[in-house]
Amino acid sequence: MDKRNIQLDDNGQLRHFLTIEGLKRQLLVDILDAAESFTSVTEQTVKKVPLLRGKTIVNLFFESSTRTRTTFELAAKRLSADVLNININASATTKGETLLDTQRNLEAMQCDMFVVRHAVSGAAHFIARHAAPHVSVINAGDGSHAHPTQAMLDMFTIRHHKGEFHKLRVAIVGDILHSRVARSQIHALSTLGVEEIRVIGPKTLIPVEAHTLGVHVHHDLRTGLRDIDVIITLRLQHERMSGAFLPSEHEYFQLYGLTEARLELAKPDAIIMHPGPINRGVEIESAVADGPRSVILNQVAHGTAVRMAIMAKAMQRLPNLSARELH
Amino acid sequence: MDKRNIQLDDNGQLRHFLTIEGLKRQLLVDILDAAESFTSVTEQTVKKVPLLRGKTIVNLFFESSTRTRTTFELAAKRLSADVLNININASATTKGETLLDTQRNLEAMQCDMFVVRHAVSGAAHFIARHAAPHVSVINAGDGSHAHPTQAMLDMFTIRHHKGEFHKLRVAIVGDILHSRVARSQIHALSTLGVEEIRVIGPKTLIPVEAHTLGVHVHHDLRTGLRDIDVIITLRLQHERMSGAFLPSEHEYFQLYGLTEARLELAKPDAIIMHPGPINRGVEIESAVADGPRSVILNQVAHGTAVRMAIMAKAMQRLPNLSARELH
Amino acid sequence: MDKRNIQLDDNGQLRHFLTIEGLKRQLLVDILDAAESFTSVTEQTVKKVPLLRGKTIVNLFFESSTRTRTTFELAAKRLSADVLNININASATTKGETLLDTQRNLEAMQCDMFVVRHAVSGAAHFIARHAAPHVSVINAGDGSHAHPTQAMLDMFTIRHHKGEFHKLRVAIVGDILHSRVARSQIHALSTLGVEEIRVIGPKTLIPVEAHTLGVHVHHDLRTGLRDIDVIITLRLQHERMSGAFLPSEHEYFQLYGLTEARLELAKPDAIIMHPGPINRGVEIESAVADGPRSVILNQVAHGTAVRMAIMAKAMQRLPNLSARELH
Repeated sequence: MDKRNIQLDDNGQLRHFLTIEGLKRQLLVDILDAAESFTSVTEQTVKKVPLLRGKTIVNLFFESSTRTRTTFELAAKRLSADVLNININASATTKGETLLDTQRNLEAMQCDMFVVRHAVSGAAHFIARHAAPHVSVINAGDGSHAHPTQAMLDMFTIRHHKGEFHKLRVAIVGDILHSRVARSQIHALSTLGVEEIRVIGPKTLIPVEAHTLGVHVHHDLRTGLRDIDVIITLRLQHERMSGAFLPSEHEYFQLYGLTEARLELAKPDAIIMHPGPINRGVEIESAVADGPRSVILNQVAHGTAVRMAIMAKAMQRLPNLSARELH
Repeated sequence: MDKRNIQLDDNGQLRHFLTIEGLKRQLLVDILDAAESFTSVTEQTVKKVPLLRGKTIVNLFFESSTRTRTTFELAAKRLSADVLNININASATTKGETLLDTQRNLEAMQCDMFVVRHAVSGAAHFIARHAAPHVSVINAGDGSHAHPTQAMLDMFTIRHHKGEFHKLRVAIVGDILHSRVARSQIHALSTLGVEEIRVIGPKTLIPVEAHTLGVHVHHDLRTGLRDIDVIITLRLQHERMSGAFLPSEHEYFQLYGLTEARLELAKPDAIIMHPGPINRGVEIESAVADGPRSVILNQVAHGTAVRMAIMAKAMQRLPNLSARELH
Repeated sequence: MDKRNIQLDDNGQLRHFLTIEGLKRQLLVDILDAAESFTSVTEQTVKKVPLLRGKTIVNLFFESSTRTRTTFELAAKRLSADVLNININASATTKGETLLDTQRNLEAMQCDMFVVRHAVSGAAHFIARHAAPHVSVINAGDGSHAHPTQAMLDMFTIRHHKGEFHKLRVAIVGDILHSRVARSQIHALSTLGVEEIRVIGPKTLIPVEAHTLGVHVHHDLRTGLRDIDVIITLRLQHERMSGAFLPSEHEYFQLYGLTEARLELAKPDAIIMHPGPINRGVEIESAVADGPRSVILNQVAHGTAVRMAIMAKAMQRLPNLSARELH
């Protein structure tokens, strides 16, 4: 089945959110606009809207991640949904039940949405392909494939701080090869029409087919950051640091660590982003992470509103959204 | 104390739900009827009723089971109760506190209901016997003794698909000896007055006192399935497969595995049930589990409504139930 | 920064609840009075008030404790708040994120309150010192330093059963040296103006600076209990029993275990308290723990109302509290 189509229902409306790839520009803009309206919700005293009241959202985590689980749980609760947290390592799969049987069971219980995190690329697609008609699937990260809600909160942050996409040069620095975040960001930036996307990193951490994605590859941070408006630093996974991919953590910082001195190479008003959690002194020094151009915590703050927007849209509860329902 | 009486309060109303044994036919029918009314709740857009709003329900699991915990958590949330999940392995009992002290503490916190899962037969009875006056106890499976809510959802499924109980012949296939599910099913089927109950399995897995339960024992699947309306296949526990009880998983399937060919022996409109999770290719082949006569996922679907009915009835919130409260 | 001031905002109102030390008598009395009004809430059919509706409370537990986590989760839910349980051992700190980064992230998600449990003394203060302007911090136990909500529920229990504080003689028996509970109780009793505070225990378990806290030190239980109105027995931690601090569990019970015979030494109407969970036959015998003068389960029962009061007060939601909002 075509990955581009599985995310949309027969009327062309969003039903699953699995990957940015193949989604239209207008859909991404609609999500960003809806998230904008939810921003006020997360700031008001009673941070709840009744859009998904009576709906059951299952955090189906095959890979444990307190951080990601928390952000989705928060977004779901602020939409007034009921949330079930299922860590599938500790559940029936260990009793020999297949993934599909687990899914069928949860669907029989009238669960409405699965937020899926899995170490294997394509897991969320698999579940979406087999989903019952009333069920929506959100990809919360699958292997090194995609992490589309993270990419959308990054787009929200970029638009919030830098305005129109078409004038922007964006650089993604680090381990592009293994990063589901980078892959989703590249698709989103490309769909939203930025002027230029650069990926910067050592040869061992840049996919060979990178140029087919429409990005410019740089192995030297100094040339890579020139005239850049937005710098996205990726987290360097610990497991890469001592492997064949990198000589050492120290050397990585020497070559690609984001320091105040190196920021000089970018535009004076460039913003610094990071999907978190950050390794201070590895891919970014504290002076930059905590400095005036860092919008790292803004990304987190926007995450809730963006996930609310995606969840509500996939459940097709946004068309009815009015100022009155929100307050 | 008499196990038959402990489940009822002084007015003869249900207070605890520990075992089917000793409950009157009318009470079981009342639960099935109440569950029928809740079925519509789980299908409507906002799947919630306010019957247990402000009540605190504790999932007190001494044996971890994501699947069972999830079904009760869902039922409780759809009744608008607050749910506390307590995995007692990780809690104060490891600090040397007695079970009774743990119970007394939760009762002092004004918790209203304990849903108890325990590896030891009789654990839920023990807690019920010591329960504070305002507290109800639901047995979510105790050792090899009883799993009464599972039996009730099975009864609901049978009535839903086959109508009146008194005309039905029901066969339970598999490891009857160790199955709390089978024990509760036999009591429920017997109380509801089916025409015949058969248990089918190898001699090592049928309790010697089986005939005292009013069932017919068959060791041959072919004679056992003749003229049967309902076939309930039990899950074969992995720990039995390599023990002294069974020669091998493969041989078990040869003798007792439910295949399409063997279904021919039963009535043409016989339904196939299984408490889940299923072992495909062990006690049932996929063609049967996913076939047109399988109602296995219907059982799961009915589970929420049946547990809602039992919880609401034990909390004596059903007498006030009206169509208006439900919607 | 001064520990006495960090708990109050610029208007002198409670914002964080970290330690009893430095809080004014009137503030403690206000909390006890508010808790009194919440007592009726926990006893009514619908045990919820909407005071913290739409607020997000995070149980940030760096040390696992089902018991304490449960009490705070219950209190938060009865105030209608949303609750996130985060066991920080299993979360991003294992990915190398600093405590401060974890905190900043949760604050960015617009969480409103952190309930912090940590094995290191001062951890809750650290978090409070770095808290965003909209965030309140409650100390749920830090190392051997403080456990102020436990002390407040103890004060509530004492006032409930014995009335005015200024006439009372209170004895705390056991391992004072390592007890955060004892430390907080001594500050509370002293602030509320009891006539006399005694600590009773072996020399190895009484801090050398005990007299500077305004308490009388007794090593002999018989002289220590004379004319006492309130006896608080502390839990003897298992790790102390076999260490250099104590010859043996048996000998401890011989010298300091609370028995019916020894109760004779206190006033005839003295009450017996214990923070739980109790070690029967170690620091207290069952006849006393379950006897007519024991108020141990009353302490637990009051715990919910007292924690509701503290949480609501720290969120500054109590000034608006009226009978109407409560019901």
